[in-house]
Amino acid sequence: MPAAPLPAEIAAILARPNPAVMGTVAPDGRPVTVATWYLLEDDGTVLLNLDAGRARLAHLRHDPRVSLTALAGDDWYTHVSVQGEVVSITDDEDLAGIDRLSRHYTGNPYAVRDRARVNARVRVDRWHGWGAARA
Amino acid sequence: MPAAPLPAEIAAILARPNPAVMGTVAPDGRPVTVATWYLLEDDGTVLLNLDAGRARLAHLRHDPRVSLTALAGDDWYTHVSVQGEVVSITDDEDLAGIDRLSRHYTGNPYAVRDRARVNARVRVDRWHGWGAARA
Repeated sequence: MPAAPLPAEIAAILARPNPAVMGTVAPDGRPVTVATWYLLEDDGTVLLNLDAGRARLAHLRHDPRVSLTALAGDDWYTHVSVQGEVVSITDDEDLAGIDRLSRHYTGNPYAVRDRARVNARVRVDRWHGWGAARA
Repeated sequence: MPAAPLPAEIAAILARPNPAVMGTVAPDGRPVTVATWYLLEDDGTVLLNLDAGRARLAHLRHDPRVSLTALAGDDWYTHVSVQGEVVSITDDEDLAGIDRLSRHYTGNPYAVRDRARVNARVRVDRWHGWGAARA
């Protein structure tokens, strides 16, 4: 897999509100995948936002390594995966983080306001593209 | 996460040709995700099919644990994840395996005929559903 930084054409694909799945590793070493929203920032990091009570947040605190696959096309074949590490986990006290993600994907602020959430900032170390995103 | 077997309504969702991402663990312990086709069999196992030269096949031979997330709805919120183990890896000598998957997703046999492939059979141990697939 090519190393970061992301080429401009890959960044352009990832910048869209694509359906995506994140992978983490549980403390027993098994892989765990779940659908997620993500946001590619201008600095090349990726913002994730998790409910503070989720098991995968505990997984990330235990092992910060993460993989994210974005399904980027209607053609069934364009997808981009990035691998990296969560470099910070901060309380999303005013829900500004999840609201950014929600607006990116839905155009609206996040509907659920009564659950504690955290922002997880991912440093991208590697990427791989397929289809129109092929290296 | 609930244990297998899958409830009928979850199996019905997974039986569709959903966009999906599989997660494996590399030998260094990092999670690896990639888009994949999959097929839920009548016996509750999941068929995956991989190019014989892919790194993630080596990952699966090293650690058979796998996670699969299927994005099952247009509503952005229905998704199902299953976790389990690859219990067999067999050569797809006549490409019958990838042709089954290709027909399931595209209606046609698989176009690429000159690359060796393998079938990987996954035993599902746990599942988790969201949205319309919520437990």
